Amino acid sequence: MSSDKRIPVAVLGATGSVGQRFVQLLENHPWFRVAELVASERSVGKTYREATDWRLDAFMPAEAADLPIKDYGDPIASPVAFSALPGEVASEIEQRLAREGHAVLSNTSTHRMEPDIPLLIPEVNADHVRAIEVQKAGRGWSGFIATNPNCSAIHMVLTLKPLLDAFGIDAVMVTTMQAVSGAGYPGVASLDAIDNVVPFIRTEEEKMAEETQKLLGGWDGEFRPAPVVVSAQCNRVSVRDGHTECVSIRLGQNASPDEVADAMRSFAGRPQELGLPSAPKRPIVVRDEPNRPQAILDRNTENGMASVVGRIRPCPILGVKYVLLGHNTIRGAAGASILNAELFKVEGLLPV
Amino acid sequence: MSSDKRIPVAVLGATGSVGQRFVQLLENHPWFRVAELVASERSVGKTYREATDWRLDAFMPAEAADLPIKDYGDPIASPVAFSALPGEVASEIEQRLAREGHAVLSNTSTHRMEPDIPLLIPEVNADHVRAIEVQKAGRGWSGFIATNPNCSAIHMVLTLKPLLDAFGIDAVMVTTMQAVSGAGYPGVASLDAIDNVVPFIRTEEEKMAEETQKLLGGWDGEFRPAPVVVSAQCNRVSVRDGHTECVSIRLGQNASPDEVADAMRSFAGRPQELGLPSAPKRPIVVRDEPNRPQAILDRNTENGMASVVGRIRPCPILGVKYVLLGHNTIRGAAGASILNAELFKVEGLLPV
Amino acid sequence: MSSDKRIPVAVLGATGSVGQRFVQLLENHPWFRVAELVASERSVGKTYREATDWRLDAFMPAEAADLPIKDYGDPIASPVAFSALPGEVASEIEQRLAREGHAVLSNTSTHRMEPDIPLLIPEVNADHVRAIEVQKAGRGWSGFIATNPNCSAIHMVLTLKPLLDAFGIDAVMVTTMQAVSGAGYPGVASLDAIDNVVPFIRTEEEKMAEETQKLLGGWDGEFRPAPVVVSAQCNRVSVRDGHTECVSIRLGQNASPDEVADAMRSFAGRPQELGLPSAPKRPIVVRDEPNRPQAILDRNTENGMASVVGRIRPCPILGVKYVLLGHNTIRGAAGASILNAELFKVEGLLPV
Amino acid sequence: MSSDKRIPVAVLGATGSVGQRFVQLLENHPWFRVAELVASERSVGKTYREATDWRLDAFMPAEAADLPIKDYGDPIASPVAFSALPGEVASEIEQRLAREGHAVLSNTSTHRMEPDIPLLIPEVNADHVRAIEVQKAGRGWSGFIATNPNCSAIHMVLTLKPLLDAFGIDAVMVTTMQAVSGAGYPGVASLDAIDNVVPFIRTEEEKMAEETQKLLGGWDGEFRPAPVVVSAQCNRVSVRDGHTECVSIRLGQNASPDEVADAMRSFAGRPQELGLPSAPKRPIVVRDEPNRPQAILDRNTENGMASVVGRIRPCPILGVKYVLLGHNTIRGAAGASILNAELFKVEGLLPV
Repeated sequence: MSSDKRIPVAVLGATGSVGQRFVQLLENHPWFRVAELVASERSVGKTYREATDWRLDAFMPAEAADLPIKDYGDPIASPVAFSALPGEVASEIEQRLAREGHAVLSNTSTHRMEPDIPLLIPEVNADHVRAIEVQKAGRGWSGFIATNPNCSAIHMVLTLKPLLDAFGIDAVMVTTMQAVSGAGYPGVASLDAIDNVVPFIRTEEEKMAEETQKLLGGWDGEFRPAPVVVSAQCNRVSVRDGHTECVSIRLGQNASPDEVADAMRSFAGRPQELGLPSAPKRPIVVRDEPNRPQAILDRNTENGMASVVGRIRPCPILGVKYVLLGHNTIRGAAGASILNAELFKVEGLLPV
Repeated sequence: MSSDKRIPVAVLGATGSVGQRFVQLLENHPWFRVAELVASERSVGKTYREATDWRLDAFMPAEAADLPIKDYGDPIASPVAFSALPGEVASEIEQRLAREGHAVLSNTSTHRMEPDIPLLIPEVNADHVRAIEVQKAGRGWSGFIATNPNCSAIHMVLTLKPLLDAFGIDAVMVTTMQAVSGAGYPGVASLDAIDNVVPFIRTEEEKMAEETQKLLGGWDGEFRPAPVVVSAQCNRVSVRDGHTECVSIRLGQNASPDEVADAMRSFAGRPQELGLPSAPKRPIVVRDEPNRPQAILDRNTENGMASVVGRIRPCPILGVKYVLLGHNTIRGAAGASILNAELFKVEGLLPV
Repeated sequence: MSSDKRIPVAVLGATGSVGQRFVQLLENHPWFRVAELVASERSVGKTYREATDWRLDAFMPAEAADLPIKDYGDPIASPVAFSALPGEVASEIEQRLAREGHAVLSNTSTHRMEPDIPLLIPEVNADHVRAIEVQKAGRGWSGFIATNPNCSAIHMVLTLKPLLDAFGIDAVMVTTMQAVSGAGYPGVASLDAIDNVVPFIRTEEEKMAEETQKLLGGWDGEFRPAPVVVSAQCNRVSVRDGHTECVSIRLGQNASPDEVADAMRSFAGRPQELGLPSAPKRPIVVRDEPNRPQAILDRNTENGMASVVGRIRPCPILGVKYVLLGHNTIRGAAGASILNAELFKVEGLLPV
Repeated sequence: MSSDKRIPVAVLGATGSVGQRFVQLLENHPWFRVAELVASERSVGKTYREATDWRLDAFMPAEAADLPIKDYGDPIASPVAFSALPGEVASEIEQRLAREGHAVLSNTSTHRMEPDIPLLIPEVNADHVRAIEVQKAGRGWSGFIATNPNCSAIHMVLTLKPLLDAFGIDAVMVTTMQAVSGAGYPGVASLDAIDNVVPFIRTEEEKMAEETQKLLGGWDGEFRPAPVVVSAQCNRVSVRDGHTECVSIRLGQNASPDEVADAMRSFAGRPQELGLPSAPKRPIVVRDEPNRPQAILDRNTENGMASVVGRIRPCPILGVKYVLLGHNTIRGAAGASILNAELFKVEGLLPV
């Protein structure tokens, strides 16, 4: 291990469902290695293997399995911390670590909308990384916090970005059919999932609206939200992984379904330019079959890091509509934070 | 049985999944009794019990169980025929029966959009029954065909009608999450349903648009489609019964969510006025809980004959949005035809 | 209400999933009426409607909806209490109420195996009611506790009883496929249920063995467990309601599948003799189709109070095998307690 | 491609669900390459991509995608043919190919029980390959047919083999909970799968009994079935992939759960000795957790080629019991045939 040149990282909230995904995706990562695992006091004194009810079908990485669990309050040695902390404890811990000099890449919603904390999708708003200068100066921190979006917002925004660039966007209507893994474990009760749809997910519709505006907006010393109106209806369906979203858009200028498809297909951003290790070759994969994307068939496209789009067609009300699907715990959570960390690294912004 | 004064009816396509629902709902009906059961030649020569792979949790009515299956081509004695025929055979058989003097109440899509055949929801467009005069005269038939809408369209239109009357409607955006029973049996493969959403149902989106316009439109000797633009996205989810639909509407004039709820709650139509046996007391049930309606909890509201609405709230794009749920094989299929037959009876239009 | 001659009853643990089933099944009961609802302090001060996340598809009975929730510690006026209390609080509360003179009919496992507390299936061991004399005398109680079996054991034992009587039973091998509602709400996580089988239910296999022996055994001042060896393997499957069980039996003397079916079909017990209101006409329904019983089709047989048996055939190892299905929250829980209460009533053993 | 030294193989029934699995597993195989794809005339004239409704989450291999579909009757150039043909056409086609000199490795049940055709699990009865000499001589064929077992039998027998060797086996009781993919596509209707268990799979229980005896038996010029009594109860549950089986065994001599676990853990056979490319390192993986194996977590163990065992414990009736899980379309179908082909290759028995 001593010859391992990779940057040591801590995973906060490591035993939970997004925490597990962090540990799994970081196995064999070329730049980072899992060095510290942090969880609530209930797990302290155990190894990761003992503390964790591992729920992924990929197996628990051997290196992580024998690491001891640290307490929320313990000092962290790794310069980088990935956070999958529960909302109620995230604020204090993440801020403390940033103050102490760590780069905190957080999947938690707590800090996403703060005026000096970047909410990032590297393909969409890589320039927002500059907000950390303001953040560090204003808060007197030597480290920083950067966040990734909600699991439904990120996939929608990925598909919106090329349309915004090419045609402008006035309004977006979206109805989601979200996987149960989005609620963590135990999360959604089986009695709510079997033979049922629950047409409500607390604060999800609000997040889709406000995060979209921040993500598609600019940064010029402060965030300038994009003037895109979003109306979301969010539903929980009986799917393990993969959020399906039916989207309808009023573009700034007319575009045919073929033009929309072309814009999506040719879309690439900073991660593709830079060849970041977790970057999908194609951030958006457009399928031509009439009955795709489907969660079971398409959620692992580009290792779960792409958004998959299908059924692009005219909408008689708003102009154009389509269906998108994305993996909600890979690109929609842990994978998003890791890609953010990769961006910060090549930008020379990690404290290492 | 000789003293049974009820009108004998035939069920066409009786062994299929909507056919079974007809037989089940007609058990103990005060006005009709199942006298004849018609199915494809594969079933001929068997009793209903022998020919049918009964898939409902309500038990097979004893009276129907011992009836012999008739062939598609056999003469029908009953004045009324309920049709759950497969599309490819429906046209010829339904027309022959209408020509021979039967009232054919059809759940099949074949004739729904024809210019002299009523597409009916008794609460919505009861006056369209008058189209059968034109139909009979024009075609030289002594009987007639009347149809009920697609299982997704009917519930949406039920909830739209009071809004159209009170505020006018310009445009309706809808995303459906439809139950597998809508595709019959065997219908949707389990490999398409478990842990999956299929974002496509053939011709469903088109039906929702065109049927809505016919249903909400007028009849003055010919049908005058309502100028309501409908944009539908239809999905199949892992639910047995009950279609959930997320709707967003641009009203003709502004209305608050409370006004919308009041209009729906106070809505009633001809079936309620006439006290038809299958009529729900409340065609639309509005629920206040934030997480309703849910398929598993609400689909049997008013014996499956009501549409259940929840989450009425402002839509920042179109004005108002809500979620609705309706039973797709009761009010969405067999129950709809039976209610139509009840309307024809009290209007004196059945050939009895 | 003053003219209502029915016996007032309390439901303990009324807001939980078995508690809800008690309230639902007691609606319109000819002998009992729900007068008091007891739940944890979290619910106190609310009405039942406010306190309860009602999860049944039958609607909440109007009479119960407006009753105030009482605290576990509050005095109870009703002579009869049905208990769906969580295990950790059941012991103390049930004993206190029995001491104070109430008849406590409990679905909780806490007291099932105690040497002076009857574990009852009225069709199987109605004579065990006499144990309450010993119980009252020994403990100095004016009331008593009587229990019903585990949801898997009760259905299996119902089907074993006629075989025990006719042929004797040496050994029973059983593999269960149990519904998620057996774990209450929220209970089983959807991530454990969708696309999965969990081959373990804590203490379930032990209960099936020991409860079977007590139920099939005698009472002669003390319980004499039946010398039947039971080997159980218990699994949780993705089913809402209805436990399916594959059983294989070594009978005391040989019997053909037809003889086994005949014994089951002709089986009846005290509830059928006495015509108890909740008694199924046929406690065991034997089906001939090769692919029955099925949870979705058969669980509501006899209003959920019967065990449904199919596929009776020779077992080359133990002699005979079959599949059984039973509703786990009706006959397997609340319905069982209510039937017990009905038996105590006609036996003149209720404190009223 | 000309420099590709791998053996060209044909896949018969390539568009079906096991056929797709063959194509997927053969991608990048070190010894074999997919050269020909055969399907029913409906697909002829199309490429594999056009003809196939690909249902695996792994993507369609690029090399296969552009191959043209051949008709059942077309001549085959590849020396090896993997068969996933439907039962009704398998017999004639497989025999013709064997007669013409091909090695036919078949997953179809048609020929499994014939007295000169090996039914193989390379870890269990590798010596049965010698039956092809008798087969070729007796039938006058230059090629041969070899088969792999039913998807439920293969995993059970894998776990039985080390117990047979160490302790002897008299009798095996098994109840299966089988995945829907075992029935192909469309296969099991979603209305049979959602919220349900179907306690019947045609001919499955018979296969488990007779195939087990052939597999565990000897070959000395003819097959000598092992005198093991098997009693199976087979169920279909709502799982996509992975059969779970509850097994109880009467051993020839007593063994503790630890001894059983040790025998399984130390088990290896010819594929492990020979280092066959598809051989799992551990054919049987024994887990210690109380609630494993689970389909969702364990079915891909050793790339789907291992049987996973858990909960080994005493059975009070037969002696020892446990739960096993295996991937039904990898080790249970296509992977089994491929491993068989690898064995024939190193034995020098392929016609190449």
